[in-house]
Amino acid sequence: MKKNLQLGVFGFGCVGQGLYHVLNETKGLKAEIRKIVVKNKSKSRPLPADLFSFDRNDILTNPEIDVVVELIDDPVAAFEILKEALANGKAVVTANKRMLADNLEEIYRLQQVYGKPVLYEGAVCASIPIIRNLEEYYDNDLISSIEGIMNGSTNYILTKVMEEKKSYAESLRQAQDLGFAESDPTLDVRGYDPSFKLAILIAHAFGVFVSPDQIIRFGIDRLSQTDLDFAVKNNLNIRLVGRALKQNGKIYALLATQFVSNTHPLFGVRNEYNAVTVTGAFAEKQTFIGKGAGSYPTGSAVLSDISALTYDYRYEYKKILQENGLTFSNDAAVEILASFKPEQFREEDFIEIKERKSSSGLITVRGTVVLNRLQSWSDLDGVSIVLAPEAALIPFEAAILQPSAS
Amino acid sequence: MKKNLQLGVFGFGCVGQGLYHVLNETKGLKAEIRKIVVKNKSKSRPLPADLFSFDRNDILTNPEIDVVVELIDDPVAAFEILKEALANGKAVVTANKRMLADNLEEIYRLQQVYGKPVLYEGAVCASIPIIRNLEEYYDNDLISSIEGIMNGSTNYILTKVMEEKKSYAESLRQAQDLGFAESDPTLDVRGYDPSFKLAILIAHAFGVFVSPDQIIRFGIDRLSQTDLDFAVKNNLNIRLVGRALKQNGKIYALLATQFVSNTHPLFGVRNEYNAVTVTGAFAEKQTFIGKGAGSYPTGSAVLSDISALTYDYRYEYKKILQENGLTFSNDAAVEILASFKPEQFREEDFIEIKERKSSSGLITVRGTVVLNRLQSWSDLDGVSIVLAPEAALIPFEAAILQPSAS
Repeated sequence: MKKNLQLGVFGFGCVGQGLYHVLNETKGLKAEIRKIVVKNKSKSRPLPADLFSFDRNDILTNPEIDVVVELIDDPVAAFEILKEALANGKAVVTANKRMLADNLEEIYRLQQVYGKPVLYEGAVCASIPIIRNLEEYYDNDLISSIEGIMNGSTNYILTKVMEEKKSYAESLRQAQDLGFAESDPTLDVRGYDPSFKLAILIAHAFGVFVSPDQIIRFGIDRLSQTDLDFAVKNNLNIRLVGRALKQNGKIYALLATQFVSNTHPLFGVRNEYNAVTVTGAFAEKQTFIGKGAGSYPTGSAVLSDISALTYDYRYEYKKILQENGLTFSNDAAVEILASFKPEQFREEDFIEIKERKSSSGLITVRGTVVLNRLQSWSDLDGVSIVLAPEAALIPFEAAILQPSAS
Repeated sequence: MKKNLQLGVFGFGCVGQGLYHVLNETKGLKAEIRKIVVKNKSKSRPLPADLFSFDRNDILTNPEIDVVVELIDDPVAAFEILKEALANGKAVVTANKRMLADNLEEIYRLQQVYGKPVLYEGAVCASIPIIRNLEEYYDNDLISSIEGIMNGSTNYILTKVMEEKKSYAESLRQAQDLGFAESDPTLDVRGYDPSFKLAILIAHAFGVFVSPDQIIRFGIDRLSQTDLDFAVKNNLNIRLVGRALKQNGKIYALLATQFVSNTHPLFGVRNEYNAVTVTGAFAEKQTFIGKGAGSYPTGSAVLSDISALTYDYRYEYKKILQENGLTFSNDAAVEILASFKPEQFREEDFIEIKERKSSSGLITVRGTVVLNRLQSWSDLDGVSIVLAPEAALIPFEAAILQPSAS
């Protein structure tokens, strides 16, 4: 039976305002905002003042509020709100990917303790209903991999830089103006934000909790002008791709920029659009494409979670409950194109070097490297790294055999 | 709470066997097949004989069976099974798109009368969870259009013919061997099958019941060698596209082949893959791509319906309940490329002719035509029709203004 839900909303930034408008124009959904708690007392807001409060208890201890919608920036404060809301018997809807990724195991446990659901479709790829669809896969052995573009802001920047030859700085500013970028842009450009989402997807796809810190990650800040020129010259695009692979009882993951050719499904995914491909046993490849950033796409995803609460939907976390013994591992390799200053380059960092060139004072290499090595390069100023076209994760056992096979 | 569901299955063809295997390897789902009712007594089957019966009452009046899974070919018999199952208090899962399209309004009504759900994700685009996702949109004004490839068999044939230069007959035979084609292939090649699916999607997207007969439809049987040559020469693909558009309180629809360029999202959707793009108010374009035919993709979609019944899921048909006053209309036009024998061609059939050529005894025309005229041509032997690249439905008021505007 459909319930008339009373919502308490924390935060009235980009997503909060998007939610307000989307909810307002969705007459069919039985839910209303009772109170919005905000921090800044001096900001003027386009809604009646009595809808706002500066006291969190106006929501958290208000017995008339069923659902706490948490849309603030600060992940630590957000987690406190989530815990208190659950303890007070309220369901929680949140789009705070960092808070979720950092605390997902605990959040899973708290839902069991308090019997109230936490939904977070808006936290991953905004309008794409990917968590809901991953929940549809029962056993973990039904999914073999997930792969996709999980950050709208950097995909927007890449599109502008590649297609319109705009500068990086201007493209970033545009993304910020359009509300796609995180308030701290390094979360986007260094790949933190999509690594949070990848960690959340790994839990729902494979039933494994992984801290985002464990995922090897480099972002579009690692791209050089040489990479952009190489892409244009070879009719390639560059995409920031998150991927996770299940093989031999282990889960491998990587968040990295990659050259993609025009036959690749991610080639045509442009601007703030995101895409996720799930490869499974029976349906094979299923791809979901939709807007991955912006107040309305994220607001509509938050709304779909609120809507789901009207019929008591909750994530089942089926693969976690199955205790499948899968563990996370970084013992994998991948083929990259990288350039180094001569003093940074060490041949022994590579399992295999396919091509090596020197020009303009840089050493450019195409070769296979283990994931941990990629991470160690992140501290080296000026090293550029992009995955080779069609490059895939190679679990370690396979990788060390490769040189002798070639 | 998760239930242990007891299933009674009608039919053990391609999809039924797919379901059996998918269910068997999905340990996490609490459902088991209690009885399979089949017609052919002499056929040998790879499962224990006591699982099979030839008496429909072994399922329909068996109080231990909760869910009737209807996977037979005959739409009339299937509808009888559905009605009796609901009347006997059983939920129904079916993949019979023809039966659904022909009786959807009645099936909607029967669910309200008997209080038991009918789920049919496997009937539309197999593995793509499109009905479930359309149900997520609340008000009808949130969706403005749906468009996509809704038949795996003809997309497979088009891919083989266009990319591998195989003959039409050989490609059709391959599609049949792989279990993609309907038992009567004219349902696929003349576009009936995707028009059934489009009718079902229109109900869930816009809350309007439309008989598949009302949808103007022409299939890949209307393609000529000239069309294929034109596509290859201009680096285009041909796709069989179903579309529906909401404008000015009316729903317009068309099922037609179309030239698509390599920037079109359907260009790269190959073989038995299907794709559906939903354009909505807040999420804007959401695209779902997945296998649209085959025993496993369809079996896994049927299984996802069974899984949904374990948590009492049912379609809400929200937009129907909203009584939005939308009506179906064919008063629209579209730009096509067509060729006629001289005695078939009538200039006055066109609102506007952009280009006209005569060669090899045929008159080839690029022009705008109203939908009803397209249908009248379907009886003319040898007329070939394909929508122009980027052609969109033009509601009639707009169409009659177009010539004077150009």
